[in-house]
Amino acid sequence: MMKNIKTTLLLLLMVQLLVNDVYAQKQPITLVEQGSFTVGGSVKTSPGTFDPVAHGAFNPSNQATEGQTLHGDHATVFYQIPDSAKKLPLVFWHGYGQSMRTWQTTPDGREGFQTLFLRRNFPIYLIDQPRRGLSGRSTEPTTISAATDDQLWFGIFRLGTGSTFYPDVQFSEDPEALNQFFRQITPDTGPLNINLNIEAVSTLFDKIGPGVLVTHSHSGGQGWLTALKNGNIKGIASYEPGSNFVFPEGEVPETIHYVGGALSARSVPMTEFNRLTEIPIVIYYGDYIPNEPVAHPGQEQWRAALQMAKLWTATVNKHGGDATLVHLPEKGLKGNTHFPMSDLNNEKVAVLLAEWLKEKGLDKK
Amino acid sequence: MMKNIKTTLLLLLMVQLLVNDVYAQKQPITLVEQGSFTVGGSVKTSPGTFDPVAHGAFNPSNQATEGQTLHGDHATVFYQIPDSAKKLPLVFWHGYGQSMRTWQTTPDGREGFQTLFLRRNFPIYLIDQPRRGLSGRSTEPTTISAATDDQLWFGIFRLGTGSTFYPDVQFSEDPEALNQFFRQITPDTGPLNINLNIEAVSTLFDKIGPGVLVTHSHSGGQGWLTALKNGNIKGIASYEPGSNFVFPEGEVPETIHYVGGALSARSVPMTEFNRLTEIPIVIYYGDYIPNEPVAHPGQEQWRAALQMAKLWTATVNKHGGDATLVHLPEKGLKGNTHFPMSDLNNEKVAVLLAEWLKEKGLDKK
Repeated sequence: MMKNIKTTLLLLLMVQLLVNDVYAQKQPITLVEQGSFTVGGSVKTSPGTFDPVAHGAFNPSNQATEGQTLHGDHATVFYQIPDSAKKLPLVFWHGYGQSMRTWQTTPDGREGFQTLFLRRNFPIYLIDQPRRGLSGRSTEPTTISAATDDQLWFGIFRLGTGSTFYPDVQFSEDPEALNQFFRQITPDTGPLNINLNIEAVSTLFDKIGPGVLVTHSHSGGQGWLTALKNGNIKGIASYEPGSNFVFPEGEVPETIHYVGGALSARSVPMTEFNRLTEIPIVIYYGDYIPNEPVAHPGQEQWRAALQMAKLWTATVNKHGGDATLVHLPEKGLKGNTHFPMSDLNNEKVAVLLAEWLKEKGLDKK
Repeated sequence: MMKNIKTTLLLLLMVQLLVNDVYAQKQPITLVEQGSFTVGGSVKTSPGTFDPVAHGAFNPSNQATEGQTLHGDHATVFYQIPDSAKKLPLVFWHGYGQSMRTWQTTPDGREGFQTLFLRRNFPIYLIDQPRRGLSGRSTEPTTISAATDDQLWFGIFRLGTGSTFYPDVQFSEDPEALNQFFRQITPDTGPLNINLNIEAVSTLFDKIGPGVLVTHSHSGGQGWLTALKNGNIKGIASYEPGSNFVFPEGEVPETIHYVGGALSARSVPMTEFNRLTEIPIVIYYGDYIPNEPVAHPGQEQWRAALQMAKLWTATVNKHGGDATLVHLPEKGLKGNTHFPMSDLNNEKVAVLLAEWLKEKGLDKK
């Protein structure tokens, strides 16, 4: 009898949680403001004088450049401020080959972190870094090869190997989901220059004030470097940081060699490094990352990154910092790709981040 | 005495209108949904077999392409559905060198059409056409020159001549506004192909159903061509269409020659043309467009476009259509550039569009 009552209560609770969850998804979102702007960038000027009469017609094959400028190398930002907003916004910075689309609708058509965290009352800022996506103008030329490389990214982004999904991967089997995922990729429109990126994102934090930086993959390392120079970054959550780990001089670990490449760390003076011990930091890695060397470079790269991230968090904490490394499978979240923020279980991934933000006092109103 | 009362009442009314206006700007916006997705596009496949072990590491200087695909040539769409939404969404399509940024925050930091029409309860869809902005993946390669050309666009976009603003232009004198305006520009990431663009936007209307297309400049002509093939386009508002005007066979006007170029029209069978007589269409042009030839190509191009648009609306209407050409200065809106949707008086420009939508029954709930 008691057992039946307990079971019934448990079932009722589960139904209630399910209803709450569906209800939360369907609730309208109230915005007090939204908009877009660019930050950072540079201006290139060609010598001479511009003649608007002689050279004022568009001539794609032979445009006169004398005396003209080009504004480029900026970041583009789209932001939304919800009602009853938390004090600190979340600033989302995409990874390599990606744009602000990373944080929007998932490949299978559900809400991404942009909307999931608006629902949690965080102001959100989405970045397209310089020379990518909406920030297309570059002061340096480039060639876009249009080379076929979807299957390369399928492997590096850890959906699977070749064209075969990993078993139980948190990615929809609907072919349209993979179609949307591939179309999220967008090329560099100028030479990749992380100093430009860091400068632009730092300028963003100068403009908006204190906030929490959320990075992914290639922006992970750039995020540490940005935090070194900007005190307005009050916390960092990093999904699968891949490179540019920053260690104090004399404490830089050896390069980690793996099938397909090598991962080295950066060195900075201890006085600079200390900045990273002053803010709470959390790092998340997904599934299918081996402990020992394997043959597939798409997995190997992340074996090295996870290993380096472990050394890094230990170093940060040794110097009084507050860095947490979360390997999602160890938290019971299995099957995550390199994109936990848009995987099928992204709501659970969001809950982990929300709990961390609360624990660190970064979610106050 | 009567006169004083009248004056007082008039003043009170004016204050009330001002308060309403400010109030409208500050009201929160309630969204029932927002998100992003891609439409259209193609898949390029390289012959051979992809070997994820041998070729699974990222090698920017020599990537193996064998057996790999590339998903490209799609359009990217960001959408928002407000509470108490109108039935027909507004689908915003940018012009040459532009992206969805055209419809977002204005260069001087005010609300653009995205938010102004959300406030009027229209669902909004913003497009980045194939090979531009967030839709960066192209199946064909290209080179981006990074040539200095800001002053060329300053002229063609009719802010002024050279670097000198037109007198009384509806553009902020704050240098930061011009900085933001230039940084809105974003290059093609593949060869421009209007057939791809039309296909992608038509696929969007297949997906979302009936709606109103809002075009700008280069998308104006592409918009007519898209409407020819998709019956879900229930109306078109076109800001400063520049090319690809479509006439029935045998009624194509002569090419209009102007300083810096020539504008020709397209010919389609009458059976196809008739489609453009079945939907309400409105076209808007701004200020600084001369009636007679002048020396500056930046103005000349729009003299030709306006002249062609007059011939075009007359032809549409002769065949039973409902096309309206609005030259904004004749409506009392002076000083508009090639970007009326983001000029200083863009709220007034929005009112004109809202009134037209209402008049044509396109704003029903």
